[in-house]
Amino acid sequence: MDINCLIFNDFETLDLFGPVEVFGRCNECSVKYFSMEGGKITSNQNVQIFTESIKNIAKNDVLMIPGGKGTRALVKDLNYINVLKNIVEKTHWCLTVCTGSALLAKTGFLDGLEATSNKMSFEWVKTNGVNVKWKYKARWVVDSKYYTSSGISAGIDMSLGFICDQFGKEKANEIAKIMEYEWNNNKENDNFAI
Amino acid sequence: MDINCLIFNDFETLDLFGPVEVFGRCNECSVKYFSMEGGKITSNQNVQIFTESIKNIAKNDVLMIPGGKGTRALVKDLNYINVLKNIVEKTHWCLTVCTGSALLAKTGFLDGLEATSNKMSFEWVKTNGVNVKWKYKARWVVDSKYYTSSGISAGIDMSLGFICDQFGKEKANEIAKIMEYEWNNNKENDNFAI
Repeated sequence: MDINCLIFNDFETLDLFGPVEVFGRCNECSVKYFSMEGGKITSNQNVQIFTESIKNIAKNDVLMIPGGKGTRALVKDLNYINVLKNIVEKTHWCLTVCTGSALLAKTGFLDGLEATSNKMSFEWVKTNGVNVKWKYKARWVVDSKYYTSSGISAGIDMSLGFICDQFGKEKANEIAKIMEYEWNNNKENDNFAI
Repeated sequence: MDINCLIFNDFETLDLFGPVEVFGRCNECSVKYFSMEGGKITSNQNVQIFTESIKNIAKNDVLMIPGGKGTRALVKDLNYINVLKNIVEKTHWCLTVCTGSALLAKTGFLDGLEATSNKMSFEWVKTNGVNVKWKYKARWVVDSKYYTSSGISAGIDMSLGFICDQFGKEKANEIAKIMEYEWNNNKENDNFAI
């Protein structure tokens, strides 16, 4: 199963690399790194990483979209959103972390569905999808082919949740144990919704 | 305060990027990415990132060493360990995550001091520093200028612990809240030591 990470400048480091650690520890998954044009992409924490162009996506299994400061400009970039629509339509599963759900909402595919996002930016995220059933209290939300998570580290819990749904609880627990990570395995359990 | 991350091929992704997220969220810190020669470095989860040569380390504030499969070869590389000795000697603080403590132990600087490491590789790590007081049950350990953490995600807790020690508990809690991360703030509390 290919995990196609779609990244952009000023993405949030852990939004991406939390899930990458989870999927990278799963033998059934192969993690790939893409951006619209390919080449060097810089995170909000100044990590510079190599990406391929999205034209090179080989298997439309899972699309993973992190959040971060970079989403603020991209939701206004109609060309970007149009290309994104095309990839989201084709992918079998689509996972977003944090404000990555603002980008996804902008494609219209979340309309009428439940979704969540980062607590700190929740009001802004909502403006990008007025027809989405936004759920403030949720560690992550699953609706149709979409998994959306709360802020930053919630992406780790959601990715383990996805592994659990796809490959069973034993596999998810095994990965969490190797990571020495205390998995919050209940997507309704959100201690940051206050 | 410069956080100088020393990375190498086959480092473990979250060992590095967990702490990077924490320090990148702290205004007092500036995160930099180094390797022995500089250039492109690939993680165990196939992330390719840009690094500068360690010759370009400008301020010897904090040295951060992740773990990962790559440490297995490096502990046997006398030239690497000799150069590492020199950097560790100069740095004001040295933090390791997971099997990064095997590399640090190999320099001899941990001799007589307490330290910890990844649970899964603990026996192997111990062989790299027979005079180190290895502590199996610990989320992280502080001794002298050295902070060593348990496996993978423990690096996040340790980094928040370092922020707490340097800049106060309020700052550490604030960063954990932004990350929507439930900080295990007690370094003795280790649920993976069984």
